[in-house]
Amino acid sequence: MSSVGRVEPQRLDFSTPLPLRRGGVLPAYHQLVETYGTLNAAKSNAVLVCHALNASHHVAGHYDDPRSTGWWDNLIGPGKPLDTDRFFVIGVNNLGSCFGSTGPMHDNPATGKPWGGDFPTVTVQDWVDAQARVIDHFGIDRLAAVLGGSLGGMQALDWSLRRPERLAHCLAIATAPNLSAQNLAFNEVARRAIVSDPDFHGGHFYQHGVVPKAGLRVARMLGHITYLSDDVMDAKFGRERRRDLEAGVDEFQIESYLRHQGDKFAGYFDANSYLLIQHALDDFDPAAEFGGSLSAAFARAKAKFCVASFTTDWRFSPARSREIVQALLDNNLDVSYAEIDAPHGHDAFLMDDPRYHGLLRHRFAQIAREVGA
Amino acid sequence: MSSVGRVEPQRLDFSTPLPLRRGGVLPAYHQLVETYGTLNAAKSNAVLVCHALNASHHVAGHYDDPRSTGWWDNLIGPGKPLDTDRFFVIGVNNLGSCFGSTGPMHDNPATGKPWGGDFPTVTVQDWVDAQARVIDHFGIDRLAAVLGGSLGGMQALDWSLRRPERLAHCLAIATAPNLSAQNLAFNEVARRAIVSDPDFHGGHFYQHGVVPKAGLRVARMLGHITYLSDDVMDAKFGRERRRDLEAGVDEFQIESYLRHQGDKFAGYFDANSYLLIQHALDDFDPAAEFGGSLSAAFARAKAKFCVASFTTDWRFSPARSREIVQALLDNNLDVSYAEIDAPHGHDAFLMDDPRYHGLLRHRFAQIAREVGA
Repeated sequence: MSSVGRVEPQRLDFSTPLPLRRGGVLPAYHQLVETYGTLNAAKSNAVLVCHALNASHHVAGHYDDPRSTGWWDNLIGPGKPLDTDRFFVIGVNNLGSCFGSTGPMHDNPATGKPWGGDFPTVTVQDWVDAQARVIDHFGIDRLAAVLGGSLGGMQALDWSLRRPERLAHCLAIATAPNLSAQNLAFNEVARRAIVSDPDFHGGHFYQHGVVPKAGLRVARMLGHITYLSDDVMDAKFGRERRRDLEAGVDEFQIESYLRHQGDKFAGYFDANSYLLIQHALDDFDPAAEFGGSLSAAFARAKAKFCVASFTTDWRFSPARSREIVQALLDNNLDVSYAEIDAPHGHDAFLMDDPRYHGLLRHRFAQIAREVGA
Repeated sequence: MSSVGRVEPQRLDFSTPLPLRRGGVLPAYHQLVETYGTLNAAKSNAVLVCHALNASHHVAGHYDDPRSTGWWDNLIGPGKPLDTDRFFVIGVNNLGSCFGSTGPMHDNPATGKPWGGDFPTVTVQDWVDAQARVIDHFGIDRLAAVLGGSLGGMQALDWSLRRPERLAHCLAIATAPNLSAQNLAFNEVARRAIVSDPDFHGGHFYQHGVVPKAGLRVARMLGHITYLSDDVMDAKFGRERRRDLEAGVDEFQIESYLRHQGDKFAGYFDANSYLLIQHALDDFDPAAEFGGSLSAAFARAKAKFCVASFTTDWRFSPARSREIVQALLDNNLDVSYAEIDAPHGHDAFLMDDPRYHGLLRHRFAQIAREVGA
């Protein structure tokens, strides 16, 4: 097993406006992508990897700095579970992100000023529509698989629902068919923290030369709590105290850890992107158009499914994955489901857990045989 | 069963400074109290009720406005589980609160200005020390019982640990022997939201004629999520939307509900009191002085215990109550434990659940027989 090594992102420019589900269009735009491995002659070995809130097209490998490793590098590479010796893997940065694709910090062509809070509402479906154009760009008719965790899993599910002919396999990890009331509630707290930061200026903070760091920090701290299990927090931090030399007080390690995470995040993430991505999460609910029936929603699906959840994930609990599995079974679809006993909470989907990675290795070997990869 | 009816708070002034556990003293101070029922001649029928974060001495009955009902009125009154025909019940507003006892909004005698952020750090132990002076004021040597839920339960436990001769029974409901790392983490997020609100002014906002409402609102919204179970939120709100007429947008009901709770709270609660009470919660950890052994901590206890938890409480989960029970059993103490199947999460301790209230009714009947109430 080795890394895909040094990689370069590519910029793809799209001149045809993208119609958006919640109204309006996104005019000419660009998306950043990275690819790993080689597309075979039949174009049958492509795997699209969809990203979650705090991630991007940079899925594997590294840039000049060898520490700038992609977020799913432990999974993707030569000889790794998603083996780039066999598959052509595509990472796409979603629209509205702050990692290079067209987003709120770019200029609105209508005004010549940054979009800011006026960037149009984008949804999981819009991201998938834009991803489909990226796949078209590579001349790929049918993906061997779409893979995603968390919000990325929602995108994988949407591919299976609205473009059933264009993927053979759907791998939806640590995800949910929609956000629960509690999920929505946490997001609303994060949103309030950001929009009530006086440096937010209704999303037009770029012009003011400020960044709503305090709000973004609180939002991230809160998010971070929901990514970790109670157990792993107790094991890692418990009630241990450390000396805050600057403030001259003792504080709990978990406090300084969270603040550090919040500060780091607020230093690079864009507040408008955060709100926009959170809104896409809140909005996703494929059953809604089918009278609340997830089974009815999946009647269109044709892919083979691999669904996995983690026992200590309380953000997107195993019960939510089982709802997906039930809807698939109701439609006699081919589905394998794994509930993986892992201590790390929601973050487990990013970890190098042997059972989890063993599962994906096995699955991708099977897909490779099927698609001639 | 009827209400205790119209009640009047009393103000008790204490001229002897109160030494504080974390250093310093609180100079001359006052506490508000309410009592219900009649103290018997033997002074053996007194029950102290300790309050949690958002509560006060106003435990039962009402003021002029019949809607101004005490926070535990469903439990306490003539013929109610804690029967004021038999018991003399005392509610005390803890120091540092914003409901009348000496707190950060009162003047610091040393400066003649409001204490604000300079109000000394108070702990659960300091509150109990001050409560003991209130009990002395009534000439009561030994309480029939100390009862508290959540943070109030921590006070009840402290009574049993540091004043074992002064109570016959300790009733600790929906509480924990300390905060878990996750509990601490949520508190740190709330703290950051408050202290990073520009209207906080390091706790000296009174002089600026402002209130850190935005921060307090976020803190309360977050707290509120942790008081409710995921299930009860889904049952009550699910993903139902409502029209926000002012903003002209559809939003999830849970969002407007939470914002409403946050706004209401920010309208009456004091930010310094919030931080101070949260710090007392963070700080409580009776095992810490005994090398982390809760069993060693409870070696001093002599009361009979009633411990109760609620199945869907994920703030202070049943597992935390079982830790207390185990420590009591290790010391061969008399303990009854109930894990009540209730859907309401942490808030269940304030609800009128028949199994829960049946348990307390039975327990207090037994206590009444024992103490001759």
